[in-house]
Formats: sequence, C-alpha cells, structure tokens
Amino acid sequence: MSFAATESATTQSAGDAITPEDLTAQGVKADEAVARYAMMLGDDSLMLAQRLGHWISRAPELEEDIALGNIALDLLGHARFFLTYAGTAWGKTEDDLAYFRDEEEFRSCRLVEQENGDFGRTIARQLVFSYYQYELYRRLVNSTDRTLAAIAAKALKEVEYHQDHATQWTLRLGLGTEESNRRLQEGFDVVWPYIDELFLDVEQVAELGNRAVLPSSLREDTMARVTKALEEAHLTVPDVKPAFGSDRTGRFSEQRGYILAEMQVLARQHPGATW
Amino acid sequence: MSFAATESATTQSAGDAITPEDLTAQGVKADEAVARYAMMLGDDSLMLAQRLGHWISRAPELEEDIALGNIALDLLGHARFFLTYAGTAWGKTEDDLAYFRDEEEFRSCRLVEQENGDFGRTIARQLVFSYYQYELYRRLVNSTDRTLAAIAAKALKEVEYHQDHATQWTLRLGLGTEESNRRLQEGFDVVWPYIDELFLDVEQVAELGNRAVLPSSLREDTMARVTKALEEAHLTVPDVKPAFGSDRTGRFSEQRGYILAEMQVLARQHPGATW
Repeated sequence: MSFAATESATTQSAGDAITPEDLTAQGVKADEAVARYAMMLGDDSLMLAQRLGHWISRAPELEEDIALGNIALDLLGHARFFLTYAGTAWGKTEDDLAYFRDEEEFRSCRLVEQENGDFGRTIARQLVFSYYQYELYRRLVNSTDRTLAAIAAKALKEVEYHQDHATQWTLRLGLGTEESNRRLQEGFDVVWPYIDELFLDVEQVAELGNRAVLPSSLREDTMARVTKALEEAHLTVPDVKPAFGSDRTGRFSEQRGYILAEMQVLARQHPGATW
Repeated sequence: MSFAATESATTQSAGDAITPEDLTAQGVKADEAVARYAMMLGDDSLMLAQRLGHWISRAPELEEDIALGNIALDLLGHARFFLTYAGTAWGKTEDDLAYFRDEEEFRSCRLVEQENGDFGRTIARQLVFSYYQYELYRRLVNSTDRTLAAIAAKALKEVEYHQDHATQWTLRLGLGTEESNRRLQEGFDVVWPYIDELFLDVEQVAELGNRAVLPSSLREDTMARVTKALEEAHLTVPDVKPAFGSDRTGRFSEQRGYILAEMQVLARQHPGATW
C-alpha cells in the first residue's frame, strides 16, 4: 500500500488531459438533457469527496490518511469536470452549482451521502461505489457525447486505483482479525440498502440514449464483482431490502443537508468574494 | 490557478524519490540527536497538514479545495519521511510517533497549530510558514546527514509550489476588495506573534552543527521576503510582540490538545488494529 504515499501531490505536470478550464475556453455547450446527467454524476463525486476528505489526519495510519485524501481529491477533480460541463447549459460555473444549489436540487445518490462511520464502513462504501463507478466510466468512454466520453476516460484511470485500494482493504480487514471482519461486515450491512439506487433508470439518464449509460445495465457486472470480493474476504452478502425512496432526489436523505451546510457556508457568506 | 486542479492525485508514478519504506528497508538508523530534530520538522508538517485538511470541501472554490488538499497531502508526505527517520533511533514507526505520543512530546511550533480561522488567516499562515520552510529546506539539502538532505530535496520541490500558491493568494486578496484586504491583514495580525518561534535556536537544533540548519540563520531571508510580499499586496507589517513562551514545547499551546484528540482517537481506540 505504499503507492499513494510516495507521490507528490503538487509537482507533476498536467499532461495532455483536458481541464475544466478547457471546457469553458473551447466554448463547449451541453444541451439541457446532458447537463442534468452530468450534474448527477458530478454530484455523486462531490458528495463522496466531501465525506472522504474528513479522513485526512484521522485515518488509522498516516499512509492511509494520504491514500483517502488522494481519492477525495481525485473525486473532487471529476466533480469539477462534470459540473463545469453541466453549467455550460445554463451559463453557470462549477462553483455556482456546488455552492448555490439547494438541497433538493442535488441529484447525488444516498450511498455517497452516508456517514463515514468507522473505517470499516468507509471501506464498504468505497468498495461498492468504486466498483459501480468503474463499470460506469468504462462504458461512458463510448458515449456519443464527446465531452462526457473524454471526462470518463480521464476519471477511469483514477477510479481503477480507487477500486484497487478498496479491494485491498476489504481483504485486509475481512481476513484480518475477528474484530476487523465483524466491523467490515457491519459496514456492508449498513450501506447495502443504498446500493439499489445506483441501478435505477431515473429520468435524467433514461432520456439520453447512447449519450449515457443506463444504470440498470451496470447491475449485473458490478454486483458480481462486489459479491466475489465479499466472498474472498470471508464476508456475507447482506440480506436486506433496498432503502425506501431510491430516486436520486434526496427526498429521503437525512445527511445531504448536513453535508451542504458545511460545504456551502463560506461561499454563501461571501458570495462572489474570494473567501 | 488551474495547475493543482488538473492533476491526478493517484495515478502518477513515484519516480526515483526515496520513500519512507526505503528508509526502513535500507536499515538507516538516526542517532538520537538527529532523531529529535527530524521529529521537530515532521511535527510541524504533520500539524499543518491536519489543519489544512479541514479545507477539503470547505474552501470558497472547488479548485481551491483541491489546491489546499494537495498541499495538506504533500505536508503529510514530508511528515511521514521525517517521523519514519526519527523513529529509527528508538525502534518506533511513524504511526507510533504520530498517534501514540502525548501532547507535551510534540515539538511543533505554535504557528502551524493556530486555527484556520477564515480563508484569509489560513493564507497568512501559509505565506509565512511556506516561506520559512522553503528557506529551511533549500539549506537542509546541504546537511551532512545524508538522509535529512535527501528528505529536504524531495520536500523542497513541493514547498516551492506551496509558497507560490500562498503568494498568489496574498496578492489576490490583498489587491482585491477592501474587505478581502482587511481580512487578510487581520490574518497576518493574528499569526504574527507566532513567527518568532520559528527562528529560535532550540536545543534540539543547536546541538547538531552542520547536520541541521540553525533557525536564527533563516530569519533575515525569510522575513525580507515575507515583508516584500506584504508590501506588494498593500498590507502592513504588523507591529506586535512575539507571543510568550516560544520554545517548541507546546507548553503554551491551547490548540495542540484539540488537534491531537482528533488525530489520535481512532488509532488509540484500536491500537495495533487496522482501524
């Protein structure tokens, strides 16, 4: 697990990747249907980044502080792309969308909004979500919307690392002590009811055809791999029902308001200022 | 300011940099005097990383979330090196030193322990500390202790970016609106009394001769550059006395206990476990 710890977070070159600034500079403009989808994808990453950021200097190892921090920053980077692209449809910036939308306007799934809980629960959430995102992005690179395809290609490489990280920890905790296995199992039990929402064909996706990836088409591959990881880690697939109200509206999210309160307070106190 | 935002935090190769694991694998062993010094340097970076980590998803711009997050992770990386090296003197790991020392055993300066305050105060603290660290590391690369020299060389490149970041924000806020200038000035006023401690020739440094850099030797260059940045940003050099008790013992730090409580709780609840 020494990979993430030896990198420099600020001194590498950007390479030939697209940047959110490029999107703006190139005059790319999403139509509203694509924008709603991009916003949904961006919201997922934004919310999870906010949750994971809390682990910086709170994880059980310094190395792990850095690993989770890096993952949070990757996700924030992806959110910037998606939200910048979405904003082009309405003449809004990524910051407008992140800081000045109200709770009911976000389209994140409840899985990423769940509290960190202990480290085991965080890893359980990471395993499921990174596997889902991996399956999603590796298909989205074929989107007929070229901007979505480019963002997915950039994100895919990083999400591949995220899922490796989650897999390694799932094995380490699952095959570790009785206590670590028990806690990780508890983590999966808690996050499990929120998985179903990931695969729901909500309107903002279903309307897009070949420009998007239909969520229901991801279920089989994602869950086969999640299940396999659980088995290898000597964990049980939870036998629980999906949570009520899985529709990406946040109507039944108890956490979203708290996340946004923290995230938006500074920008709202000083709108337009650089505070 | 688009630099930090376009990077991948998890997908670049480690290059030829040394790693904390290398130090252990190579059987490097610090003598106790060097270890006390390395611990002091590591503690500074560790504490500041903890403070900066809080800005993830709380900064006034998504881009800035990522920039401060990256800086926090760089600093955590440097802390890992210094603490790993320090630990070799006593058969302890970086995690032993980070999570299982008590408040009075840390040797961080009070500047890095100060609360984030608003964004202006954080930037003021960043400017002073990154300028200090830059002057320190660019001399420490000549240490006759080869490990310290190697760690400094690795850290220097990153701290160079940190000071650029702080300089740019100091100018942007200082020359921005009346309000942003006022708040940044307030930030400098608050952190100023804690600068003196950086340049105190405490015992753990003075005893090392050419293996370390004497703090008092850094004062002139550091403060000349800080003063110049303040002038360019239309800010006033604060006329305040140094805070009482500047000796890197933390005896007069009101903040250290809070930082450690957050940082150490998980590791202490489950010592030796991977939680």
